[in-house]
Amino acid sequence: MSGLSGYRGPSAKILTEAGASIGDVLEVQTGGESVTGTLVPRYEHNDDSHIVIKLKNGYNVGISVEKVSKVVRVAKGEAPKFVTPEKVASKGLPRVSILGTGGTIASRVDYRTGAVSPATTAEELYSLFPELSGIASITPEIVLSVYSENLEPKHWETIAKRVSEVVAEGVSGIILTMGTDTMGYTAAALSFALRGLPVPLFIVGSQRSSDRPSSDAFLNLIGAATMAVQADFAGVYVVMHADSSDERLAVHLGTRVRKNHTSARDAFESMGVEPVGYWSRQGIQVTEREAPPPRGEAEGFAAMPNFDPRVALVKFYPSMPDGYLGAILGSGLRGVVFEGTGLGHINSKNIDQVKKFVNGGGVVCMTSQCLWGRVDMNVYDTGRDLLKAGVVPLEDMLPETALAKLMWALANCKSADETRAVMQENLAGEITPRSVQRR
Amino acid sequence: MSGLSGYRGPSAKILTEAGASIGDVLEVQTGGESVTGTLVPRYEHNDDSHIVIKLKNGYNVGISVEKVSKVVRVAKGEAPKFVTPEKVASKGLPRVSILGTGGTIASRVDYRTGAVSPATTAEELYSLFPELSGIASITPEIVLSVYSENLEPKHWETIAKRVSEVVAEGVSGIILTMGTDTMGYTAAALSFALRGLPVPLFIVGSQRSSDRPSSDAFLNLIGAATMAVQADFAGVYVVMHADSSDERLAVHLGTRVRKNHTSARDAFESMGVEPVGYWSRQGIQVTEREAPPPRGEAEGFAAMPNFDPRVALVKFYPSMPDGYLGAILGSGLRGVVFEGTGLGHINSKNIDQVKKFVNGGGVVCMTSQCLWGRVDMNVYDTGRDLLKAGVVPLEDMLPETALAKLMWALANCKSADETRAVMQENLAGEITPRSVQRR
Repeated sequence: MSGLSGYRGPSAKILTEAGASIGDVLEVQTGGESVTGTLVPRYEHNDDSHIVIKLKNGYNVGISVEKVSKVVRVAKGEAPKFVTPEKVASKGLPRVSILGTGGTIASRVDYRTGAVSPATTAEELYSLFPELSGIASITPEIVLSVYSENLEPKHWETIAKRVSEVVAEGVSGIILTMGTDTMGYTAAALSFALRGLPVPLFIVGSQRSSDRPSSDAFLNLIGAATMAVQADFAGVYVVMHADSSDERLAVHLGTRVRKNHTSARDAFESMGVEPVGYWSRQGIQVTEREAPPPRGEAEGFAAMPNFDPRVALVKFYPSMPDGYLGAILGSGLRGVVFEGTGLGHINSKNIDQVKKFVNGGGVVCMTSQCLWGRVDMNVYDTGRDLLKAGVVPLEDMLPETALAKLMWALANCKSADETRAVMQENLAGEITPRSVQRR
Repeated sequence: MSGLSGYRGPSAKILTEAGASIGDVLEVQTGGESVTGTLVPRYEHNDDSHIVIKLKNGYNVGISVEKVSKVVRVAKGEAPKFVTPEKVASKGLPRVSILGTGGTIASRVDYRTGAVSPATTAEELYSLFPELSGIASITPEIVLSVYSENLEPKHWETIAKRVSEVVAEGVSGIILTMGTDTMGYTAAALSFALRGLPVPLFIVGSQRSSDRPSSDAFLNLIGAATMAVQADFAGVYVVMHADSSDERLAVHLGTRVRKNHTSARDAFESMGVEPVGYWSRQGIQVTEREAPPPRGEAEGFAAMPNFDPRVALVKFYPSMPDGYLGAILGSGLRGVVFEGTGLGHINSKNIDQVKKFVNGGGVVCMTSQCLWGRVDMNVYDTGRDLLKAGVVPLEDMLPETALAKLMWALANCKSADETRAVMQENLAGEITPRSVQRR
């Protein structure tokens, strides 16, 4: 690695004038402000107009050369010694697979265009997150490159199948990186498709790009990698910031997690239950709830990766126009998950349409748009009428989880009756026993 | 009022044997348990098999005569002296209007059938809640009798019109009692229809029947009545339990409140903001946020009670089947509110359909299914494409509030462009200034 690796043109010029080399501690002054940190090498090949400084907290910041008034070399540093994948492998560390699907974690930022591109090799990952090379022998791989809002059941299938293969190859754990928009849906879907998974799979994402100073990517990835090696439990979990500090991660059960904020680092929350545990640099702290399943043998594990996408999630609201529900139910669906009001209701005028759909072989399930608490359809007339029409009450199952489960159940059950029965079974923690219900 | 007013048959027999009269303190033994409280008169005419006891905490409990092993008269009491409406009126207390729409607050329970029926006269209300007679001169009235899940925009119109009339008659405040299922939607709808309301309107409900021991109706109604007299602010609010204790109520702005639990007393929460205030028997405590509007003059106030129900609230989810969104958009709608993912996204494959709907004169708005935080459609490609397609981003407006507002705006604006502009204006606190955003 040369003295100013990756810097060209204006950025190389200003750094050369300051006598700076990669690894030096620099104070970069811009107008009234200044940033102090370690000069890191560039990988973005089209950008010669930014200087990238690694701050004390581990995050990188890119500073436009145009704005720089002065660069002062505060201390002579050593060029960082990036560890090669071969060297990491030779250490005998446990193997951890990172499956990339798109999204902003483990990405580089082109500071000129703002574009992010995924890190695709172990070498790049170790250079972005040097700490990883001391934790595990990482095998990164891009499985998909899809925005989270564009992920569909066919992508869940692709992921589940690849996870099966990776498990058979023998890994200590798996990290799935993805955009956060539909992470809750994916976590639920994989919880059913990968029942009996013998290792832990941690889904991580980032609310901000991994190469930006305020990113949460760094800690999420380090925590997930550490747990992939150390955790004594298996299964599908979402690992994201537990609070607004940058110190503690929450480990959420894949079937009970929801994105509850558009932009906060701690957007993800366990619904109605405690998170399975928390991670910080002090270790894993498992909460007092039902113990997560222990690790198992890779042999004998088989995914059930199929989903039937012909299912709708319908949030009920006052005065759903007459044509609306009919249009939905007539659009070739095999199943509907309602987000009803309160204990599980829709307008009683719509019940006949629902009955007709059920009588025609459709499966209709009821959850609540309240999101916390359980549906109880025996309290009021409307609920009882819906039960009589064949609607399946889903206790405290999250609507998003119910959608993924119904797509999975329809693809794997032989009849509507079997599907209805499976929907009411607690397969992956999606129905909370009252003893551990928190709110 | 006779010695055993309202009791007949088996219930009268067992009470007569015990020498009990209305107002006596009784210990009623049932198998291994016993209940002690004051014998209250019955109003339910078809039930001769229950004894109703008022507990110390103010709640009534009905005990089936079949289960009673013994009744012991613990103390001689005085038959409660119910205050007549004439007497209350003569005290010169401020007038408060209670508008009933159905739901379980201010109801009597028929303990035999479990059915609840609303209290329809001031006399009944004063007998159910004697404390009310010391607070205000109450005028109760049944405006509607509809389950909350069956409430529609046409009902919102009926309520808004009646509120206008009541305001013109001169009242200190208005209490609207209703079922809780769609209370958030109604509160939002009335916030727009009753902009400039010169008195406070408190929407109250009960998560459990008002004549049952665990009911929250009592405190909700007493608090709302007290504030209807004492509060120095006007506008539309939801008043429900602030926590699981039975001591403190939260006053939620009508546009920022959501039912977040299927059954808990404190199911209602202000979203992204502090409640406007709290009420307890110690008084009203206004929180430090934007001050609510002060009371005004009844003269000059005019409601805008119309709503156009041709609007859908569509929660986006992964793999919305191709026919689904088309079916919705083709079902005669004038507007759609999306609950998008994250910062305000839907699958990019659906954007063309949205564009077509907008080009055909439809209004499409974007909120987030995250429920907390703001949409920001400038961050990612998908958001920018949706903006280009004409989708209106609604900041942190709640999806339910956006639905009611769009129904209201379409009924009151002259064009789609005007509607879009109105949707982005903060008319009733539905868009939170960043300075008071809490989460």
